[in-house]
Amino acid sequence: MSGTQSQATASSLQICRIMRPDDANIVGNVHGGTILKMIEEAGCIIGTRHCNTQPGDRCAAQLARVERTDFLYPMFIGEVAHVSAEITYASKHSVEVQVHVMSENILTGATKMTNRAALWYVPFSLEDVDNVTEVPPIKYASPGQEEEGKKRYEAQKMERLETKERNGELLIPVSAPEPYTVGFSQSSLIHLVGPSDCTLHGFVHGGVTMKLMDEVAGIVAARHCKTNIVTASVDAINFHRKIMKGCVVTVSGRATFASNKSMEIEVFVDADPLIEAEKGKYRAVTAFFTYISLDKQGKPLSIPPMKLEGDEEQRRFEDGKMRYLQNKAKRLADKERQQ
Amino acid sequence: MSGTQSQATASSLQICRIMRPDDANIVGNVHGGTILKMIEEAGCIIGTRHCNTQPGDRCAAQLARVERTDFLYPMFIGEVAHVSAEITYASKHSVEVQVHVMSENILTGATKMTNRAALWYVPFSLEDVDNVTEVPPIKYASPGQEEEGKKRYEAQKMERLETKERNGELLIPVSAPEPYTVGFSQSSLIHLVGPSDCTLHGFVHGGVTMKLMDEVAGIVAARHCKTNIVTASVDAINFHRKIMKGCVVTVSGRATFASNKSMEIEVFVDADPLIEAEKGKYRAVTAFFTYISLDKQGKPLSIPPMKLEGDEEQRRFEDGKMRYLQNKAKRLADKERQQ
Amino acid sequence: MSGTQSQATASSLQICRIMRPDDANIVGNVHGGTILKMIEEAGCIIGTRHCNTQPGDRCAAQLARVERTDFLYPMFIGEVAHVSAEITYASKHSVEVQVHVMSENILTGATKMTNRAALWYVPFSLEDVDNVTEVPPIKYASPGQEEEGKKRYEAQKMERLETKERNGELLIPVSAPEPYTVGFSQSSLIHLVGPSDCTLHGFVHGGVTMKLMDEVAGIVAARHCKTNIVTASVDAINFHRKIMKGCVVTVSGRATFASNKSMEIEVFVDADPLIEAEKGKYRAVTAFFTYISLDKQGKPLSIPPMKLEGDEEQRRFEDGKMRYLQNKAKRLADKERQQ
Repeated sequence: MSGTQSQATASSLQICRIMRPDDANIVGNVHGGTILKMIEEAGCIIGTRHCNTQPGDRCAAQLARVERTDFLYPMFIGEVAHVSAEITYASKHSVEVQVHVMSENILTGATKMTNRAALWYVPFSLEDVDNVTEVPPIKYASPGQEEEGKKRYEAQKMERLETKERNGELLIPVSAPEPYTVGFSQSSLIHLVGPSDCTLHGFVHGGVTMKLMDEVAGIVAARHCKTNIVTASVDAINFHRKIMKGCVVTVSGRATFASNKSMEIEVFVDADPLIEAEKGKYRAVTAFFTYISLDKQGKPLSIPPMKLEGDEEQRRFEDGKMRYLQNKAKRLADKERQQ
Repeated sequence: MSGTQSQATASSLQICRIMRPDDANIVGNVHGGTILKMIEEAGCIIGTRHCNTQPGDRCAAQLARVERTDFLYPMFIGEVAHVSAEITYASKHSVEVQVHVMSENILTGATKMTNRAALWYVPFSLEDVDNVTEVPPIKYASPGQEEEGKKRYEAQKMERLETKERNGELLIPVSAPEPYTVGFSQSSLIHLVGPSDCTLHGFVHGGVTMKLMDEVAGIVAARHCKTNIVTASVDAINFHRKIMKGCVVTVSGRATFASNKSMEIEVFVDADPLIEAEKGKYRAVTAFFTYISLDKQGKPLSIPPMKLEGDEEQRRFEDGKMRYLQNKAKRLADKERQQ
Repeated sequence: MSGTQSQATASSLQICRIMRPDDANIVGNVHGGTILKMIEEAGCIIGTRHCNTQPGDRCAAQLARVERTDFLYPMFIGEVAHVSAEITYASKHSVEVQVHVMSENILTGATKMTNRAALWYVPFSLEDVDNVTEVPPIKYASPGQEEEGKKRYEAQKMERLETKERNGELLIPVSAPEPYTVGFSQSSLIHLVGPSDCTLHGFVHGGVTMKLMDEVAGIVAARHCKTNIVTASVDAINFHRKIMKGCVVTVSGRATFASNKSMEIEVFVDADPLIEAEKGKYRAVTAFFTYISLDKQGKPLSIPPMKLEGDEEQRRFEDGKMRYLQNKAKRLADKERQQ
């Protein structure tokens, strides 16, 4: 059986699954969160597998960061999602996993690449959960490949340090907000972490967290646009602190920026150890999600302009605009390079 | 990326997934049913994909038969299940899919073949669901392989015809209760308490119990009314005894009263500690649910009158009527007070 | 909605979630049980949180009672359910949580209050599960508020005592079958087919049916053996008739044969089109599952002998023995061929 062999090579993996009604919104578009969760499951398996290929403490690969991810095409109920993951770089204490997602319509045979993502994992010892273990080296096809990986490693390391600070703010509710204001679409949900949300060792899967983040961001976008909205991209996400079994997770989202074709939503994840309350609530993750609005034929609609209130919202809008312009410039540059 | 290519070959497929607490029993053994479900998902994808590789009506591959399957080794929570499926024979109107399941311990690297299965699928047209479509031929590695497949095909065809007859018998030779009687709509379900049903400390969430109670009451109401029914109210529910992890919960419901606009269903919850059986089965909760019946526009329909049999049913009906009249009076009083 | 403001204070809480296809019936009405489950989740979080705000034993709030609840308006798939919970009274050993549920159509902005509920929780020590701990006092806005709460507390206490007695009765006054008989372990479950159980075209996935069959067979085996049981094999399964969306599926299992090391369970699947009832109930699948019993180290245990009653059970036992011997012979033959 040819399939069996490919499992043996520790450095690649394929997951696939039919998309079901609960994976999608009422119009049939698969939630970005469903795809992020599958991507992370593949990354977690391949990362944990690789980090355990040498003697010593057994360890679990914990998600530390997801690079900026674009959702290139929508996926629909009934299609098969194929997620392929590959380890592409290993530093002393982390691995980079690159993931591709294809959608396959098994009735027509049509396939499309819907996502590309890069995730960073750090292995924690199972004997001592605060102890980061060493990552076995991988073989590179060429010295250039290793060099490229090292550059990506240094760049993300820098960014992770930078964002660690941005973590203080809380969402403040507004009384009877006007439509199109930030207060109007602002949303938050609470989730009690259950056993199937966790790894065998009691830590919440990064994919579970990302799925909740996408759910809240989607509600914010739908409240603002009142149309069928879909995830267009997710900015790099850093996972600063682990979330454990028995926590209550509060996920909050607010609109920060809207261009004509897309809107940006900032999402915060706070963890609250329910019983050991003395440990205190802490900010675990923050990220920016970008959504687009679609009509019934799946064509893009323009986004209603945001009504900004106060200097703070104005400042965030300007910051969002900067990110928007940078991403746009980067996309154009990538396109030109490919031609 | 090499993984992407293997998708293109229409005749093989790999699914993999980490086994979670909800996939297993309390001791950590993955349920056979979890594995059977994954096997069938792989078979369904590959079968549907193959049957749509030629022009003509689009079709869905429907499972027709699973050959005898052995579970060679147990699988555990935290292991990765790899399911590989391959089309191994095609007759004019059916395909045989052979599936292998491997378990992989990603911490130790140990892998085991836990199952081998063979499934037969028949393609049904999506335009006309009763119409079986033709299966495209497959290429065999050798003429011997085709011959072997044909033998398996003939053998299973014979067996399917044989068992078709044995299928008439019903487990409980019900003396067919008359429509609109209490016996006709009476229903009960069994639920094996899983990890996600429980608090961190092994007690079933009250909300899980109430959801099961509503499910049974809804089935009773739908069997009686044969329409779209919705929950209108729930009487006070007392939780006298805790239900623990590892219990089997039996939830039973029976109609007690019907007015023109609503019907009342009494629901019982019994807990049965499966393993510590010396503790004995006990009644954990009882409650009354009230349902109304709606037409396609969501407007209330009248409830078919109940056919009562015996004094006991008559007494329960009178009690239900009392509750109904009391609630009605209370609602009216509340309304007046609010004006 | 004022509830939004209060997230920060420990004594109030908001949960929200989009209603998904699996939360509703085929017409799109969210199940009452889905809402009850959300209400209780909010109550459990806020209750547990409050009871742990003072030093001493950590504890879990256990649901003791839900007051009568009305479902004022239906909720639909795609709407967002907002559940706000607030602690409104604390006695020495219990807390009252009041919950409001709003539905929000995020496309039109329309909101409706769909439910109001009051739940009573009792905190149990996590160190000693039978020990009720003390509840920290709460602050009341006015002395009148405390007085009102106390009245509600006394009223529910009285009612709980009253209903405690009514709880002895069993639905079907079973003439308590003897252990190890077929009647003793015989089990059946009802499952309302949901969207995620089905293909895009409304047919139940074969894998979903097999998972339910394994679940029932496992309950039969556990009731007979009272140990950790695992699926050892499944005989060939034929799927004679399709099962469609909106059906109620009844899955029943009974022990047919037991050798020293394994037991065989026959499983029946009956489909019942709930709304188009004129189509009638039909037998969709039957199969034989074989289970083995394991001790805590995972070693096989012997199966308690079955107590057979009547000729019919004796006949089925002989048939089962035949299958058992045939399979054993076949396994031996396969083994020899492979050597």
